[in-house]
Amino acid sequence: MIEENVQNEYFELLKFESVGGDPSKFRECVECASYLRRWLGKLGFEGEMLYPENGAATGAASMPPPVLFAERKGDEGAPTILFYGHYDVQPADPVSEWQTPPFEPTVRDGRVFCRGSQDDKGQFFAFLCGMRDYLASATVKPTIKVVLEGQEESGSAALSAMAPSMRRKLAADVLLVCDTGAAADLRPAIIAGLRGVSHFTVRLRGVNRDLHSGEYGGIAPNAAQAMAELVSSLHLRDGSIAVSGFRDGILPPEYDELRAAELSAPSKEALEADMGCEPVGGQLGKSIVQRNSFEPTIEVNGIHSGYGGPGAKTVIPCEAIAKISMRLVPGQTPRAAFEAVRNHLEANVPRGMKMSIEDYNPGAGGFRLPLASPLFRLAEHVLSEMDGRGPVFIWDGASIPVVSALREASGAAPLIVGWGQSEDRIHSPNESYSFAQFEKARDWARRILSALAG
Amino acid sequence: MIEENVQNEYFELLKFESVGGDPSKFRECVECASYLRRWLGKLGFEGEMLYPENGAATGAASMPPPVLFAERKGDEGAPTILFYGHYDVQPADPVSEWQTPPFEPTVRDGRVFCRGSQDDKGQFFAFLCGMRDYLASATVKPTIKVVLEGQEESGSAALSAMAPSMRRKLAADVLLVCDTGAAADLRPAIIAGLRGVSHFTVRLRGVNRDLHSGEYGGIAPNAAQAMAELVSSLHLRDGSIAVSGFRDGILPPEYDELRAAELSAPSKEALEADMGCEPVGGQLGKSIVQRNSFEPTIEVNGIHSGYGGPGAKTVIPCEAIAKISMRLVPGQTPRAAFEAVRNHLEANVPRGMKMSIEDYNPGAGGFRLPLASPLFRLAEHVLSEMDGRGPVFIWDGASIPVVSALREASGAAPLIVGWGQSEDRIHSPNESYSFAQFEKARDWARRILSALAG
Repeated sequence: MIEENVQNEYFELLKFESVGGDPSKFRECVECASYLRRWLGKLGFEGEMLYPENGAATGAASMPPPVLFAERKGDEGAPTILFYGHYDVQPADPVSEWQTPPFEPTVRDGRVFCRGSQDDKGQFFAFLCGMRDYLASATVKPTIKVVLEGQEESGSAALSAMAPSMRRKLAADVLLVCDTGAAADLRPAIIAGLRGVSHFTVRLRGVNRDLHSGEYGGIAPNAAQAMAELVSSLHLRDGSIAVSGFRDGILPPEYDELRAAELSAPSKEALEADMGCEPVGGQLGKSIVQRNSFEPTIEVNGIHSGYGGPGAKTVIPCEAIAKISMRLVPGQTPRAAFEAVRNHLEANVPRGMKMSIEDYNPGAGGFRLPLASPLFRLAEHVLSEMDGRGPVFIWDGASIPVVSALREASGAAPLIVGWGQSEDRIHSPNESYSFAQFEKARDWARRILSALAG
Repeated sequence: MIEENVQNEYFELLKFESVGGDPSKFRECVECASYLRRWLGKLGFEGEMLYPENGAATGAASMPPPVLFAERKGDEGAPTILFYGHYDVQPADPVSEWQTPPFEPTVRDGRVFCRGSQDDKGQFFAFLCGMRDYLASATVKPTIKVVLEGQEESGSAALSAMAPSMRRKLAADVLLVCDTGAAADLRPAIIAGLRGVSHFTVRLRGVNRDLHSGEYGGIAPNAAQAMAELVSSLHLRDGSIAVSGFRDGILPPEYDELRAAELSAPSKEALEADMGCEPVGGQLGKSIVQRNSFEPTIEVNGIHSGYGGPGAKTVIPCEAIAKISMRLVPGQTPRAAFEAVRNHLEANVPRGMKMSIEDYNPGAGGFRLPLASPLFRLAEHVLSEMDGRGPVFIWDGASIPVVSALREASGAAPLIVGWGQSEDRIHSPNESYSFAQFEKARDWARRILSALAG
């Protein structure tokens, strides 16, 4: 359990239905950001609500939720720390599967059940509570900048678009993020790398309408078959990527990185139990850690063409779409990787088809952080004091594109440590966060801020 | 225009909403069949309603519409003629696109607008009216058997299932069908061949749920990509079929057939104008007529897997389906062709996937009728009297599976002549049939029955 006033504040924060991707929840998002601005104001932060100058340029059909930027000036000569979190949450659907209402924080067995109780309201608010504890007793105080956005679950378009023009405002020494998981059994984990991500849609158009497969079979080109051919051309039979130029410039991991990554990697058996099938994705002959952390991917997120209902409808489909995303590793740039894929696709458009590429989102490149950096040594020391097992390092196959954008704009060294566990069920019904996790995140904030302030 | 009493009967027939594929229209179908039974009864036909002994065995979830079988005994020694038609119609959707209500026959510019005005109520009823004219004056009368089913638009399951056990009942010398099109400008056309058709669904299952493409990318097998690979394995790059054994036994067309087919085939330019793209389907190096009439196909009628909505959802799909149909040519049997495809698919299941094949419908094989047969000479003579241009022969790429079943069960030689035109817009809103077409079909019936009775 935590102090009653902290729990009240936490629960008040959770009750805002700040589903950032839902335009009908815009007001809830603004109210949530305002609440946080007031909360930080009491600690001496100057806060402001930021909106992109041209909302439409960010791809949003409506005004995006505001980015809260708050700064507390510290002592002369003390470092500047940038903290990132997001107050938006995933939709609560399917609501019927929640045991208690999704926006009514409910405590059961030491866990708080509520949408956002962990991701990311719980994690970032626990951190901010630790920061408040720290500020109450610190002698030398760093400058602290807090960025809390309302669009992380729907792509971070506004903040990503604004970041490059906020260099001065964001400039910092360290970028702290509390939006990731710890290792099994709450063992601390430091994110040592993230892959980048880009995505786009491919559309093929053949004939002018779905045609009768008897009357036109053998003469009309088939868009479903064409898409199958085009998509399958992206990989070779051994699972490697067949796109010329896609891998150009890739920086392979160092021996120390590979060794450390192996230590934190799940076993083949654990993956099989989790996924329900053998981990046979990616290129034959490369290890699980290689394929999941250090290799790029080109993934088909969906293919749709023609009939898909019950029974049969014997048509030759006129159109097909494929949703494609890429995970990128250091040395690849989103633009060059995309150009390579686009060139490949254009060179392989099947007979009779017109191809278009739509909804291209360059996203962000991947990064790996230097294992031997003083920042990591410091974090390792702090986390070893919190937990005798010490931290593991994780090269996460996933992406937090906005972290790349903030890192570039701020010039800060990222330190990404979070306290999630798989049982928290983020993005799913009955999301929860335990008080034990909350206290870990809070303690981490106190300790790392203290250590960074020197 | 036609006689008022004939038009009244025709319109009464059209008003039944006999959508055979819609269980909620079962009663309308029975009433429609009853109406036809009474109509034929006045001409001396003994009619009976047939239902499959086990409705469930035909794949129907509910009782299928009845097959009307009616027989009129003719003179001793006269031939037996079997006539096939279907009283069921396509659904009227989208109803809003009809200029007049879909089941209210409306005359505009010499055309009757109504669902089924052509397909097949108009065509078969015009034929039956011609038969009535003929019977009123004939001296030697053939035995006539009429089979009118209520499931043609939804697969003819009941009649196909019953036909093999109705050999004695169906036995005939000639099988007449009036459910196809004439050539351009109402030039008569004799169907000299039809392809067969079979279809099934392929399902691939990989991981146990859609997975995050970052967290699992490179280790989880992707069902959408796997389906793309599996589907594209069915063809070689030149468009030929890659399935070993699939083409075994194919009987290529004779020189005379190819030459006659070329005469009735649409030009490359006409096809391009119709389809909106070049006719580049099928195997490179084979002619349009070859590919459309005499070659089999394996066609993907649809592929569905993963995300297909706006924007992106970066998942690794756990499941994919493909709807696949085959058009078969003489020499292929549905079972052997399917076994070849199944063996190919089983041998090519991508890593990490479990495949299942569902909803297999063997359909029917294709056939070609002997061009030099006395029946065709007779029909050619009759049609040349009706139209100085004489008939064309068409090897239709499409299939009427039930005709294959009736042909086998009856032992009769098929003579398939219809009077449809593309402007009739069958299966679409505002279907219509002109009085001129009606009279052609009626005249054809009078003349061919007279010629067959000798």
